[in-house]
Amino acid sequence: MIIVPPYWFLEALGEVVTYEVVDSSLPVHGGDIAAAVKRYGIPHEQWLDLSTGINPCAYPVGTFTPDVWQALPDKSLEIDVLDAARSGYGVADGARIVAAPGTQALIQWLPRLISAQDVAVVSPTYSEHAGSWTACGATVREVSSLSEGDDAEVLIVVNPNNPNGRMYEPLDLLRRAEGRARQGRWIIVDEAFCDVTPELSLARKAGAPGLIVLRSFGKFFGLAGARLGFALCPQELGDRLSAAMGPWAVSGPAAVLGARALRDADWIEATRQSLADMTRSVDALIHDVGMTVLGGTNLFRLTHFEQAVPVYHALAKRGVLTRAYAACPQWIRFGLPADQDAFHRLDVALRAAVAEVNGA
Amino acid sequence: MIIVPPYWFLEALGEVVTYEVVDSSLPVHGGDIAAAVKRYGIPHEQWLDLSTGINPCAYPVGTFTPDVWQALPDKSLEIDVLDAARSGYGVADGARIVAAPGTQALIQWLPRLISAQDVAVVSPTYSEHAGSWTACGATVREVSSLSEGDDAEVLIVVNPNNPNGRMYEPLDLLRRAEGRARQGRWIIVDEAFCDVTPELSLARKAGAPGLIVLRSFGKFFGLAGARLGFALCPQELGDRLSAAMGPWAVSGPAAVLGARALRDADWIEATRQSLADMTRSVDALIHDVGMTVLGGTNLFRLTHFEQAVPVYHALAKRGVLTRAYAACPQWIRFGLPADQDAFHRLDVALRAAVAEVNGA
Repeated sequence: MIIVPPYWFLEALGEVVTYEVVDSSLPVHGGDIAAAVKRYGIPHEQWLDLSTGINPCAYPVGTFTPDVWQALPDKSLEIDVLDAARSGYGVADGARIVAAPGTQALIQWLPRLISAQDVAVVSPTYSEHAGSWTACGATVREVSSLSEGDDAEVLIVVNPNNPNGRMYEPLDLLRRAEGRARQGRWIIVDEAFCDVTPELSLARKAGAPGLIVLRSFGKFFGLAGARLGFALCPQELGDRLSAAMGPWAVSGPAAVLGARALRDADWIEATRQSLADMTRSVDALIHDVGMTVLGGTNLFRLTHFEQAVPVYHALAKRGVLTRAYAACPQWIRFGLPADQDAFHRLDVALRAAVAEVNGA
Repeated sequence: MIIVPPYWFLEALGEVVTYEVVDSSLPVHGGDIAAAVKRYGIPHEQWLDLSTGINPCAYPVGTFTPDVWQALPDKSLEIDVLDAARSGYGVADGARIVAAPGTQALIQWLPRLISAQDVAVVSPTYSEHAGSWTACGATVREVSSLSEGDDAEVLIVVNPNNPNGRMYEPLDLLRRAEGRARQGRWIIVDEAFCDVTPELSLARKAGAPGLIVLRSFGKFFGLAGARLGFALCPQELGDRLSAAMGPWAVSGPAAVLGARALRDADWIEATRQSLADMTRSVDALIHDVGMTVLGGTNLFRLTHFEQAVPVYHALAKRGVLTRAYAACPQWIRFGLPADQDAFHRLDVALRAAVAEVNGA
């Protein structure tokens, strides 16, 4: 069963296939401030970066003992961060957890370790899944529902999805994983943004045959630069993933930060609450300027506007970087502002940008 | 032409094949303090860790702006660290430089990108080269000279070599690379410890067909926990390596640290000098207790002693962790002490350990 949020417009999905690329200069990923500096002539420090789904209120980095930087990250450090991930994400005892320098590293490795020709990615979504399997020679189909990808050797779904926030019922995903496993097939559930919707997570069922769950540390904890992500999967695949990445895959500071943050239940709970509050403010503003919220999570909002690409550029001229999509020229995705000051800046810039585009 | 240091005993090489594994509990790598804590019951902070070739006097970590931790490491950060590596290592203009989260990540990826069945590793050396090619299905031969591996599709040599410090003349390696390239063959020159012997480096010739040079950031700069390494290679292979690792492979802090440190010519020069001084002190001590220096670099010393494994354990009981080799029970490798206090501790412990083993 697919959970369709009330604000979700199925029409929006159709745009992916019908719209042509209108602006090939739009960035492939969010977060490339350097490119924005070059394009719009605004210095690095003056940008309000809302182009990613990374929490702008980061977990405090704190300090590290010198050996964290100096020594090879030893076994005890690895055990510690894996233990924190197990309790923090609520991972089933039978599952193997593999730490990586970012979920992206796992996305790069999985196609090398799972032999598959026919891969289905529930789309639109984060483009690197399709990219990495294609690069390894697989034929990748962008499907619009789980059922459409049922016959693929590997089925990939992001839950909740980026950019549209589409949610999938975890027990339905588990049932599919078990059915697929009997045919030697896999389902990859990328839970990159699941920290704000823990009820959707399959972490408690990880280890089930045919199921690979990916968790990103950097997004919810706001520490994308640290590079840390996890695969939760059956033992045998985990052993192969770990062997493929080799020793010392994760940096000492990332392991220490991960271990601290994933155990900090108070910070996690307070952050879920404040992200929910800010999301309500952003949605109200978007509605107020005449744009439509198509969906999202409490880390980003996908919006629809007839003149979205012009608004994207008009915001960028004002030093506010959002995310536009060459393939969907009526979409803008907004990351969340860090605080009331940043929200105010977005408020002023967005009203001005929309007015400019509307010719007011 | 192979440069044979005057203190190098060719007999030592023979031990690799003739000795049997005497102590399977010896660690596979240095640096695993956690395992030593468990085995010898000495708390983490009380160890003098001389088990690696990592410079114990680290480059100062300094501070980072918050965005280094929080944002995805953007293109400008990548360009900056690659630029610093190009000038710091003196890399030829035509060569591609690819940054990775540690040289180990490159060692893991290369066998996936270069198709080869027959691989030769000049041995004894760092075990992960043979391991990663074997894991990818190649047949790996441990050869004792470059010429012996001439016919292999991929020939791997560490220069200067770990653990014995054996040195290879760079122009001879270049000539071999060029000859091999005409047959579609590669030579991988792992320069993990080359910062202390820059005259041996092939960085200035990188980009030559058939040549892959690996540089480790963490060893000389003493920041192994940061995870940073580089491949210097022809453009086409570099493009494939970079694509295989995907975006944001290196953490923000590692990129910033690398960019700072690789440009700090004064620190680099002073450190080369102080490591050379400490090496002389350590060699004198080793000689004084009746052990023989077989070779090494100014980051580690390989020694020979009839009762090396008992001395290794006797040192460990005293909280001094060195590196012993199950396959070569008459070898101990010593990393360098950080300062005179650490040297004094080694001095006292080594004299006591040797006396204990000699039954004095």
